Amino acid sequence: MLEAARQLGVYVESVCGGRATCGRCQVSVQEGNFAKHKIVSSNDHLSSIGPKEQRYASIRELPEGRRLSCSAHILGDLVIDVPQDTVINAQVVRKDSDGRVIERDAAVHMCYVEVEEPDMHKPLGDLDRLKAAIATDWKYENLEVDFHLNPRVQSVLRKGDWKVTAAIHKDEGSDRPRLVALYPGLKNEAYGIACDIGSTTIAMHLSSLLSGRTVASAGASNPQIRFGEDLMSRVSYVMMNPDGREGMTNAVREALNGLIDKVCADGGVSREDILEAVFVGNPIMHHLFLGIDPTELGGAPFALAVSGAVHLKASEIGLPMNAGTRVYVLPCIAGHVGADAAAATLSEGPHRQDEMMLLVDIGTNAEIVLGNRHRVVAASSPTGPAFEGAEISSGQRAAPGAIERVRIDPVTLEPRFRVIGIEPWSDEPGFAEAAEKVGVTGICGSGIIEVIAEMYLAGIISEDGVVDGSLAARSPRILQNGRTFSYLIQQGEPRITITQNDVRAIQLAKAALYAGVKLLMDKQGIDHVDRIGLAGAFGTFIDPKYAMVLGLIPDCPLDKVKSVGNAAGTGARMALLNRGYRREIEETVRKIEKIETALEAKFQEHFVYAMALPNKVDAFPELAKVVTLPERKMSAEGSGDEGTGRRRRRNRE
Amino acid sequence: MLEAARQLGVYVESVCGGRATCGRCQVSVQEGNFAKHKIVSSNDHLSSIGPKEQRYASIRELPEGRRLSCSAHILGDLVIDVPQDTVINAQVVRKDSDGRVIERDAAVHMCYVEVEEPDMHKPLGDLDRLKAAIATDWKYENLEVDFHLNPRVQSVLRKGDWKVTAAIHKDEGSDRPRLVALYPGLKNEAYGIACDIGSTTIAMHLSSLLSGRTVASAGASNPQIRFGEDLMSRVSYVMMNPDGREGMTNAVREALNGLIDKVCADGGVSREDILEAVFVGNPIMHHLFLGIDPTELGGAPFALAVSGAVHLKASEIGLPMNAGTRVYVLPCIAGHVGADAAAATLSEGPHRQDEMMLLVDIGTNAEIVLGNRHRVVAASSPTGPAFEGAEISSGQRAAPGAIERVRIDPVTLEPRFRVIGIEPWSDEPGFAEAAEKVGVTGICGSGIIEVIAEMYLAGIISEDGVVDGSLAARSPRILQNGRTFSYLIQQGEPRITITQNDVRAIQLAKAALYAGVKLLMDKQGIDHVDRIGLAGAFGTFIDPKYAMVLGLIPDCPLDKVKSVGNAAGTGARMALLNRGYRREIEETVRKIEKIETALEAKFQEHFVYAMALPNKVDAFPELAKVVTLPERKMSAEGSGDEGTGRRRRRNRE
Repeated sequence: MLEAARQLGVYVESVCGGRATCGRCQVSVQEGNFAKHKIVSSNDHLSSIGPKEQRYASIRELPEGRRLSCSAHILGDLVIDVPQDTVINAQVVRKDSDGRVIERDAAVHMCYVEVEEPDMHKPLGDLDRLKAAIATDWKYENLEVDFHLNPRVQSVLRKGDWKVTAAIHKDEGSDRPRLVALYPGLKNEAYGIACDIGSTTIAMHLSSLLSGRTVASAGASNPQIRFGEDLMSRVSYVMMNPDGREGMTNAVREALNGLIDKVCADGGVSREDILEAVFVGNPIMHHLFLGIDPTELGGAPFALAVSGAVHLKASEIGLPMNAGTRVYVLPCIAGHVGADAAAATLSEGPHRQDEMMLLVDIGTNAEIVLGNRHRVVAASSPTGPAFEGAEISSGQRAAPGAIERVRIDPVTLEPRFRVIGIEPWSDEPGFAEAAEKVGVTGICGSGIIEVIAEMYLAGIISEDGVVDGSLAARSPRILQNGRTFSYLIQQGEPRITITQNDVRAIQLAKAALYAGVKLLMDKQGIDHVDRIGLAGAFGTFIDPKYAMVLGLIPDCPLDKVKSVGNAAGTGARMALLNRGYRREIEETVRKIEKIETALEAKFQEHFVYAMALPNKVDAFPELAKVVTLPERKMSAEGSGDEGTGRRRRRNRE
Repeated sequence: MLEAARQLGVYVESVCGGRATCGRCQVSVQEGNFAKHKIVSSNDHLSSIGPKEQRYASIRELPEGRRLSCSAHILGDLVIDVPQDTVINAQVVRKDSDGRVIERDAAVHMCYVEVEEPDMHKPLGDLDRLKAAIATDWKYENLEVDFHLNPRVQSVLRKGDWKVTAAIHKDEGSDRPRLVALYPGLKNEAYGIACDIGSTTIAMHLSSLLSGRTVASAGASNPQIRFGEDLMSRVSYVMMNPDGREGMTNAVREALNGLIDKVCADGGVSREDILEAVFVGNPIMHHLFLGIDPTELGGAPFALAVSGAVHLKASEIGLPMNAGTRVYVLPCIAGHVGADAAAATLSEGPHRQDEMMLLVDIGTNAEIVLGNRHRVVAASSPTGPAFEGAEISSGQRAAPGAIERVRIDPVTLEPRFRVIGIEPWSDEPGFAEAAEKVGVTGICGSGIIEVIAEMYLAGIISEDGVVDGSLAARSPRILQNGRTFSYLIQQGEPRITITQNDVRAIQLAKAALYAGVKLLMDKQGIDHVDRIGLAGAFGTFIDPKYAMVLGLIPDCPLDKVKSVGNAAGTGARMALLNRGYRREIEETVRKIEKIETALEAKFQEHFVYAMALPNKVDAFPELAKVVTLPERKMSAEGSGDEGTGRRRRRNRE
């Protein structure tokens, strides 16, 4: 039956090579008869359960109706299901924790073989006989061998009584297959890690390469933060300190080793059993992780040391796992659009869709990808760190105590808000007690977006971002600071306000983001997008409605705007579990048209235009369906072009 | 002209890719005219020397009549010579110190390229643009890159002002080409080492991969000697000491590092510029060098961990050269017939000849190869270390003070001898004074062979190896020791004698050697060989006549018996300079029929037969032409078969 499945192109896994020992080729018989212990009858559709399957069933579990496809012979028409959920995970595809189905075709293949014993008449080496067995049973000819296995091959073969499981690595079609690990006896497991190295946080998943199942996930802060909060300050640190690059490389690798320990402990997996690792990150994280000086990325022409996918051994970068563990790093798209954006693209697949999709990952730079199956363009926009709560007077990272949701009563101008780590809203029972314990310490990225959008919707700030000081007469929430005004959210310990400078910082950031998006829309010749994916932590917590009120993103039906979570991490897992995805994203990255915003005259124009809130009202008809936008003098004044001209002049002043 | 040479299959080197800067494509115009600075005339056969060649000639030397073939256009018929001896070594082949011509096709290829500068509109990484340039100029597509170059590529490209020389490694046809080193500007040199790791001595050659010239050679004692003089004692040491393998591996690698330093110093070459290394050695040296436990080689079935060729990086075995330096280790033939025998086979080429050639390398084991282009067989014989002077009462290694030549007057039985480090023979003027200084300390392998052969020729020992005590009456040189007698060579300080036990040790060793040779001759179905090559130090110093008197080697015209020096080292150099030789020896080793003497009933029979001196007189008609063999009762007694029977009985007693 295994042979029939292969002929039909159905992927059924087998580690033991048809010896009925690994159990991975299990199938479920949906329609068709077979005998359990008896001889075959004329109306059976499959051979009876033979001695090998009985032996397997006696040692491990073989549920009712299941057969080992390597041992069952087809006698008549039947319907077979390749199960998705067996204990030993013999399925073709499997849903992981985030609900995504990843078809498996890992670069590592576990191959059980029985090796001929030494023969003085044919004095081939032990390794050479192992290679011959692999060629015969698994058709891997011309095998390369990791050198570290040479000193180990004799003891492993003898320990396994000449039965061993070989881990064969073959990534690209043009690669020679390579023996990377060797285990005595039948080794029925192999693992891989997928990791997204963000400037702020590092996320890692540990997955079974055989079942595709994610067995553990963990995250940690990027310890490079101690060298600089945002990317450019880390580049500066490298430029100004002789061992700055090395220090940051060591810091991130130490953090990765800690995460590997954690996912191994959580998943009950030995580091030795991790044979593959996939990493993604923005260009500067990518370079620092690989030990490459990122200085060139700090200034034009923003030259990457390497943009293509990088293949290496884990031991070459101080991540001890198995001595044969291979690392794959996704390609970077451009000097400011990294392997994380490539992985997010792989995950969300604009290049696989008919709809025009906008994919935005907001960090210190916003990485923006826009396209469909016909054409994909990408750019980055220098948003600065305001969206992450940096450079905001009461800003902080998204952590317990941070205000993440805000509503402002348009009549009283009183705020109510919700805090990370506290269940009730600030005007609900139980909040005060909880706030006593957790503390309300600042406002995070999504909170800033909401409060500024609500301030706009409540008329506290005008379309050009000025806090209306005349309202101080009406509400104690409006405070004067010298010549500008601010909005008070919390009176004490700490006092949390939104200052005029905070509004300006968000205006600059959102204008940069929108200008980048608009530039890509120009390149595509479109004036609206079909769907929007918001990636990363910011994208997870932000309410799309408020992002649209502020004009961070272009007009789009709100139900088509989705948080895509850690899309970069998902893309990394896809590349881990299926080497076909590696070729797909490599080809996609080659084809993506890279736009350098600094070289585009239109960028500046879009930027100035987008300083207003919310850019231009009539550009957001979808938004008008769900929120009541304040009436503006603007719309009465005349055409958008005139308005733009007015704003530009004002900006020059 | 370079293009024409390539079309004709003539290998003309070029590093700069036709830019007239490297000068390696120099040719000498034998017949044909060309103008030096003028315009071309109608009877010129080549274009005139243009600005590029003039520039080259002004910076480096371009001798009269020489042209750069990349810059000269053919206008008519001419005769071109590809020179063998230019200063910059632009020759196709070159004789090295041992007179051998090795055609070059190294696994490493130096490729000069000019790389496009970064362009924000096409944000390919620096490494990716380098790969594109290499693909365009040198047709290496799908290039793999050594990871260590990722952090270096940006600084090298900028240092070379976007002009760099890439070292591309491609060994087997199925390999992907691999970038292993990168230099700013034009790098016109690359080196390799070839090394034979003997149990006693290690020999290393440093060669230019571009010219083929051997720029330095050096040798050293194998420091493993402190763990055990011969191979089996080293295996025992490993078996009895938990860190014995590691200690011996470290010892040999340290010695290799010392030799690399020495050849680099002698040749004025930086370790960084060594990009390839080839190693050979007997199976136990091979395993210890690679860090493999040799215990399995200590007993049947004598299983090698690996018999095929081994590819690795020098950095994997603690031999720091360039970070990209690759190591190639020749295949082993069998458990006791190593990569050194394979290299000697490659060097002497029995498999390329019509004549039936015997190739013998004598160490603790004798490695024996016998064959011609139709069939090659190989075996090892357990000679023990007697031929190396071990287990001989006055034996020592070949070093100053060792007796290496001996003649015995058949009438007076007085010896005369020659000592390493002393020019005159012992009966010539000046010897005494020199001996005073150097000291006469013992007798080395070649001396032992000669003295025992001379003792036999002088009638001091019988054909069954007994020292004739009755001669004590006639000569003070015959001394009694208990029940046996010995022969005195030097009376004092130290006293040097050949004892009955010494004769027995040599008898055992030579019987083992001859029995192995005879077994292979049986396999080939021959009763004589066409030529004999004696490899190694022992083969260099031994006089073939005496080897034949003792019956170490079968009968053969004496002018067809040659010392082949360090044939293993020469084979290693061939594999270093031309990867085609790697494929040749790999295929040859696969085809060689391996004979395990321990499994052959005939071996024991041949061994017993060969205990006599010189085996059987009438088996050596060639020898009878050059020495007067003593008359023997044997030849009068009857047929050889009877004689053999008699000896066998005696041996049983």
